[in-house]
Amino acid sequence: MTITLYELTGRDTERPFSPHCWKTVMALAHKGLTYERSAVPFTEVPNVENGIGKTVPVLRDGEHVVSDSFDIALYLDEAYPDRPTLFGGEGGVALSRFIEAWSATQISATIFGALLLDIHSMLEPVDQDYFRRSREARLGKSLEDVVGASPDKVKELANRLDPLRLMLKRQPFIGGDQPLFADYIVFGILQWARICSPIQLLQPDDQVTAWFERCLDLHGGVGRSVAAAA
Amino acid sequence: MTITLYELTGRDTERPFSPHCWKTVMALAHKGLTYERSAVPFTEVPNVENGIGKTVPVLRDGEHVVSDSFDIALYLDEAYPDRPTLFGGEGGVALSRFIEAWSATQISATIFGALLLDIHSMLEPVDQDYFRRSREARLGKSLEDVVGASPDKVKELANRLDPLRLMLKRQPFIGGDQPLFADYIVFGILQWARICSPIQLLQPDDQVTAWFERCLDLHGGVGRSVAAAA
Repeated sequence: MTITLYELTGRDTERPFSPHCWKTVMALAHKGLTYERSAVPFTEVPNVENGIGKTVPVLRDGEHVVSDSFDIALYLDEAYPDRPTLFGGEGGVALSRFIEAWSATQISATIFGALLLDIHSMLEPVDQDYFRRSREARLGKSLEDVVGASPDKVKELANRLDPLRLMLKRQPFIGGDQPLFADYIVFGILQWARICSPIQLLQPDDQVTAWFERCLDLHGGVGRSVAAAA
Repeated sequence: MTITLYELTGRDTERPFSPHCWKTVMALAHKGLTYERSAVPFTEVPNVENGIGKTVPVLRDGEHVVSDSFDIALYLDEAYPDRPTLFGGEGGVALSRFIEAWSATQISATIFGALLLDIHSMLEPVDQDYFRRSREARLGKSLEDVVGASPDKVKELANRLDPLRLMLKRQPFIGGDQPLFADYIVFGILQWARICSPIQLLQPDDQVTAWFERCLDLHGGVGRSVAAAA
């Protein structure tokens, strides 16, 4: 049975950058599953699999089509129970929802403004138009204004990572001795920044940097298959 | 076999207030275990069970003596596997360490300054001396100065709770449909504030308030067995 991952790309289809798609790439690698990648630009997202989701990633596995990175992870654990678990039980599923909310409100919200023009520059003209129009409508200001205000927000990042930093004194991954989907939730956000922008978010001697590097090394270094933005 | 919980109290031994001891009270109630409570003032903590821990809670269960609220929860799940789980699997254990670190760095650190003089006023004179001396040495300033600076920190609380608030749109407890130890980790901090101080930390219409009230209702309302500070 062929698995297909529909993932967001820009002009260079070899540089997928979506944080949510990276969560799924890591989840598939964690399960040891092989799959085909189907590159989707922003303006084609509504057409993926007859419009099943408003977003990517979308995963087709034979007859099953699933959208949303968390739902895909749940599907993979259910469909492939003999392969390494992504959640480590029902408690792990529930608590991963907290990690998802923490990552969205504390990490993603803090850095996304800094990435907007970098992302814009990676897109084809038709997708640039869509991206600017949709994001500026949502944000109520120009991409340039949001990027201009971003350094103050990015400064907060180091403090916002304190919970992860303190936890890393005890265990090498959010999942404990080994990574779980919870790690990939946070990894996806930092990988998005790594691929889109040369901005330095973390200090080299930060424990969070060491954790991120460990994540990049996982599963044959799949996270390093796309180089950091120069 | 008799279970004994050694828990911190002040002058009124019917008003245990330690956040970590409350985590254990909730964990014991969650497991449906009965136990005796042994009140310990600050200056007696080093003498509990021949000084096994530097802190309370300490739990004696027959021949087993365990200190630290997280270790006690792990012990209870291992010793009483047929009773409701506190973690929901290995993933739940690992991710609870993240919740613990989030709670310590984002919630406890934000509100503890506001509580210092309230706690001080609950203690016997000998414990007041110890508390002031040890905390002022740790903080490098007087209790009064820390309390004076606390309103600005407490203002941050609402934002720092954003991850919990967003998660609560999806599920009623951090543990999912039912609470797990992860809920009690955060509950313990807010219960500490509720018992020590009349300060209003949360708005009535906050989803986090609704969650905290649900936690107070759990297990026969054990959390309400001590009234809020007036």
